[in-house]
Amino acid sequence: MSPKITTELLKQLRQVMKSPRYVQEPVQAYIVPSGDAHQSEYIAPCDCRRAFISGFDGSAGTAIVTEQHAAMWTDGRYFLQAAHQMDNNWTLMKMGLKDTPTQEDWLVSVLPEGSKVGVDPFIIPADQWKRMSKALRSAGHDLVPVKENLIDIIWTDCPQRPCKPLMTLDLSYTGVSWRDKIVALRSKMAERKVLWFVVTALDEVAWLFNLRGSDVEYNPVFFAYAVIGMNTIRLFIDGDRMLDPAVREHLQLDSTLEPEFKIQVMPYGSILAELQAVGAGLSPKEKVWLSDKASYALTEAIPKAYRYLTPYTPICIAKAVKNASETEGMRRAHIKDAVALCELFNWLEKEVVPKGTVTEIIAADKAEEFRSQQKDFVELSFATISSTGPNGAIIHYKPVPETNRTLSVNEIYLLDSGAQYKDGTTDVTRTMHFGTPSAYEKECFTYVLKGHIAVSAAIFPNGTKGHLLDSFARSALWDCGLDYLHGTGHGVGSFLNVHEGPCGISYKTFADEPLEAGMIVSDEPGYYEDGSFGIRIENVVLVIPAETKYNFKNRGSLTFEPLTLVPIQTKMIDVNLLTQKECNWVNGYHQKCREVIGAELERQGRHEALRWLIRETEPLVRVP
Amino acid sequence: MSPKITTELLKQLRQVMKSPRYVQEPVQAYIVPSGDAHQSEYIAPCDCRRAFISGFDGSAGTAIVTEQHAAMWTDGRYFLQAAHQMDNNWTLMKMGLKDTPTQEDWLVSVLPEGSKVGVDPFIIPADQWKRMSKALRSAGHDLVPVKENLIDIIWTDCPQRPCKPLMTLDLSYTGVSWRDKIVALRSKMAERKVLWFVVTALDEVAWLFNLRGSDVEYNPVFFAYAVIGMNTIRLFIDGDRMLDPAVREHLQLDSTLEPEFKIQVMPYGSILAELQAVGAGLSPKEKVWLSDKASYALTEAIPKAYRYLTPYTPICIAKAVKNASETEGMRRAHIKDAVALCELFNWLEKEVVPKGTVTEIIAADKAEEFRSQQKDFVELSFATISSTGPNGAIIHYKPVPETNRTLSVNEIYLLDSGAQYKDGTTDVTRTMHFGTPSAYEKECFTYVLKGHIAVSAAIFPNGTKGHLLDSFARSALWDCGLDYLHGTGHGVGSFLNVHEGPCGISYKTFADEPLEAGMIVSDEPGYYEDGSFGIRIENVVLVIPAETKYNFKNRGSLTFEPLTLVPIQTKMIDVNLLTQKECNWVNGYHQKCREVIGAELERQGRHEALRWLIRETEPLVRVP
Repeated sequence: MSPKITTELLKQLRQVMKSPRYVQEPVQAYIVPSGDAHQSEYIAPCDCRRAFISGFDGSAGTAIVTEQHAAMWTDGRYFLQAAHQMDNNWTLMKMGLKDTPTQEDWLVSVLPEGSKVGVDPFIIPADQWKRMSKALRSAGHDLVPVKENLIDIIWTDCPQRPCKPLMTLDLSYTGVSWRDKIVALRSKMAERKVLWFVVTALDEVAWLFNLRGSDVEYNPVFFAYAVIGMNTIRLFIDGDRMLDPAVREHLQLDSTLEPEFKIQVMPYGSILAELQAVGAGLSPKEKVWLSDKASYALTEAIPKAYRYLTPYTPICIAKAVKNASETEGMRRAHIKDAVALCELFNWLEKEVVPKGTVTEIIAADKAEEFRSQQKDFVELSFATISSTGPNGAIIHYKPVPETNRTLSVNEIYLLDSGAQYKDGTTDVTRTMHFGTPSAYEKECFTYVLKGHIAVSAAIFPNGTKGHLLDSFARSALWDCGLDYLHGTGHGVGSFLNVHEGPCGISYKTFADEPLEAGMIVSDEPGYYEDGSFGIRIENVVLVIPAETKYNFKNRGSLTFEPLTLVPIQTKMIDVNLLTQKECNWVNGYHQKCREVIGAELERQGRHEALRWLIRETEPLVRVP
Repeated sequence: MSPKITTELLKQLRQVMKSPRYVQEPVQAYIVPSGDAHQSEYIAPCDCRRAFISGFDGSAGTAIVTEQHAAMWTDGRYFLQAAHQMDNNWTLMKMGLKDTPTQEDWLVSVLPEGSKVGVDPFIIPADQWKRMSKALRSAGHDLVPVKENLIDIIWTDCPQRPCKPLMTLDLSYTGVSWRDKIVALRSKMAERKVLWFVVTALDEVAWLFNLRGSDVEYNPVFFAYAVIGMNTIRLFIDGDRMLDPAVREHLQLDSTLEPEFKIQVMPYGSILAELQAVGAGLSPKEKVWLSDKASYALTEAIPKAYRYLTPYTPICIAKAVKNASETEGMRRAHIKDAVALCELFNWLEKEVVPKGTVTEIIAADKAEEFRSQQKDFVELSFATISSTGPNGAIIHYKPVPETNRTLSVNEIYLLDSGAQYKDGTTDVTRTMHFGTPSAYEKECFTYVLKGHIAVSAAIFPNGTKGHLLDSFARSALWDCGLDYLHGTGHGVGSFLNVHEGPCGISYKTFADEPLEAGMIVSDEPGYYEDGSFGIRIENVVLVIPAETKYNFKNRGSLTFEPLTLVPIQTKMIDVNLLTQKECNWVNGYHQKCREVIGAELERQGRHEALRWLIRETEPLVRVP
């Protein structure tokens, strides 16, 4: 792929940064964060401002443009992609490497004395504003909110904000009604003595009201805010979506309800004014609860003394612990997903080996086709990473015509993909070889597998935070001097965002919430050899109680149960590098794949895929 | 041991908390932190104010006294000890447990509206002040500095501040002269563009000037501050210690020196005034570097705009990476220490088994006696934990006549001890059984050993922080539902404090500095069964480069080399629970003990202890 030429755009941006039409005072730097006004990871096309100005369209990155410089901060997943997509106007700042300056330090090093640094207050989270503002102030500069988004001004063909119809989810999917969720939320609010709670994250709004949308690709969410009081419910949402009789019925908009469950529907754009009105009406000791990642604009609407900020909202925490209906839904979704992948891998083996005509894009499309044949399929849960050979080393690669390689019997193929089904969200990575892998490829694959198993089979006390498990995934790689530059796992939503907080498995966080039974995370160690290949083995796993001999003096034990049930290619495994215990884990896992997915393949009459599954789940034999 | 009766003392304290003679306005709560004005962990008797007011004399804990309540926060090492030592006036706040409130939250929950909370500004670190002050202010209270220490007022027989002679260390011990350390420090200051550096930690003053003292038991430090400018060196120290010709010679106080190496000696008590003078004389952009753990009083002496605060000082970081002379010294110290312990364990086996007359105190004294026979022995490095049976479960137990148990063939004996030698500091824990351990005791011991080995043999990339290794030490215990409530390792000084930053191995920190070759830490997992026994296996280990197959693409690999060379009792090991690799580790370790310590025992003519060593280092045989 060739980089986006940004010379002219940067010139225009630098002009508006100085133009009295758009800024009260000229700004010497302008920050373009990744997110939208809801701090979403996946954003609508109209919110892809950082990609527009730089060309880099990975899911994480912050651009800063000054009079002289343009710099992009992103993490290890995107070093290669960003370097490919950006032209020479841009400097890539590799986060996580020792010598990479922070955005604040870099700004201080390049700005002339007494500079103003501008940012859209709706796009920057309050916690980032605070940190950035403090660092700049202590160096004699100022962070200033710029009301009009300066990218939008130069982005003449910016698409419209989407406003698609909503889908209602009944109790069989959600397990808990929106009314009961409101009751539980209000009880958490009472515990913390807050009177109002502001729901700013799109997946939290969707979860709270048991509604789903399709305003953002891959994430079944819709643009909305909510403000929950002890006796009021306000939903800020645009369009004629509230005219849909199913939605009106679901939210009981036309019923005679107790006033505390009556939902007031208001325009999306009125949130700031309404919140300012709430803020203005507060008495001492009356508090408003917001995420500390809510936008600076909304946070500032509440006077400081009345704010109650937490890193994770009560909705975020409640949403992470799946109830029985959600867990069963996730199981069903993963069974259907496995069926689709068995079909795909069987098809690939038939097509790749003799014909050599399958490209990364064709394979990705075929995966989507098989998934879409499954019941309650809605859409993909993220852009399929279908990558062969050196493309596999680009951690969040997405095939495009310019990079599209043909699968062959000579290269490793890495497929990281997933879907949204009405009953659950999937995310699975398998790494396959359709010819004969080299000894080195097998060695690396086996270390990654050992790490995957070490996490999946880990037993740990109740209350353990996921980040404490991250090194388990790396130990086998470390022993040979190998590592990977990303975390090991993320929370997964239930027919919601494929990445969600507040739990995960990563060396990078310390503030994750403790794991508890019912939480769902991914387990996905990898190894990447730049220019050659990528390996990743990812299952979605459910946190479940474990049986241990001594049970931590009744504190309780936890472990993981894989929800993903797709064979791990045994051809890639160097069995001699596995311990007997690891070997047993693989065989037990494959046995379960055979039983559960085999039965479903049989039921769906997919006999060829079933034969593939049987073949791929032959037990490993280790010669001691 | 019976608790200290504190009713009368608390009554007196509550009186002075309201007395206009001592406080400008009455304070509704008074905080008594653990430390002294240097944030030392080990403190002089005159600084043991928290122990005086509460009876609890563990090394970590914070007391807060209000009109109605008296509460003590301490961590898992001290839950039992604090509960034993405090009377019913006190509430124990078990830090690290889920339901334990923070000090701030607790204060907010018990204080009447608009309260003042007092604290001695010399004793509270600036970072704690900031956090506490902010939390109190947001709840409508105020944290106020109380100039006179209120405990000192009611402590009528408070001992005097010690002021003992100094010891000079020559290049053969330190490897680097104090002048070269000053040069290196000034270069770090220039890098960060600061003009002044304030040395507040006692071990940092001692390290910088290559001096040692004995003002604080177990820590070879002396009460002093230093302020280093780009052209000036000020040492704040009391007494006639500077009259000692050896010290004058060492510091070149009477030589004609370049002015930038001329040390100005000033009274200890003048630090605040001098620092305020420095602060008052600063021009814009001139900064003063302090630890963010320096006292609130000293931090406030520098106007906020001129402060440069970091969690770890450049001295702390330089001190942690031992040079060749220090490493060799540490090796020598550990060899001597191992000789003493071989003598002790041999003696214990002879005395305990047939006679049954050895108590915990006698054993501790004997250990000290054997250590004191070794060359360059100075003192112990901490109070010996000599504990048998249930006392072993009190993690930082120290035997006193009331608790003193007799060692027997029926109980596990845990000895955690160490010494200061002029060439290095030791800290070693061994857990022994002089009779026949139960299967359960052996099982627990073996899990602890597996954890010890997992850390000691770990290989990890350069730049890894120690906290990422903590779970390795727990994995075998976790598998069976067991855990321990303390970190796995701490930095160890070189003839300095037995606990030092900025590195360690603990699930509790995230801000530790990355491990690098030359750092020295302890590796000490454990298991504690309340009321029954304690198990801990501790070696001091040196971070060394590792050889790996792929070497992290030239990022480099690290691992540990044990400096402690004392046999691990094989009688306590259930060999069948070890992997072959673990078994090989134990045998290799014992082989090295035999060679290195055996040679030294031979050289010292300690033949009986040598025979004990040979017996104890017989290779394990694992039946596969």
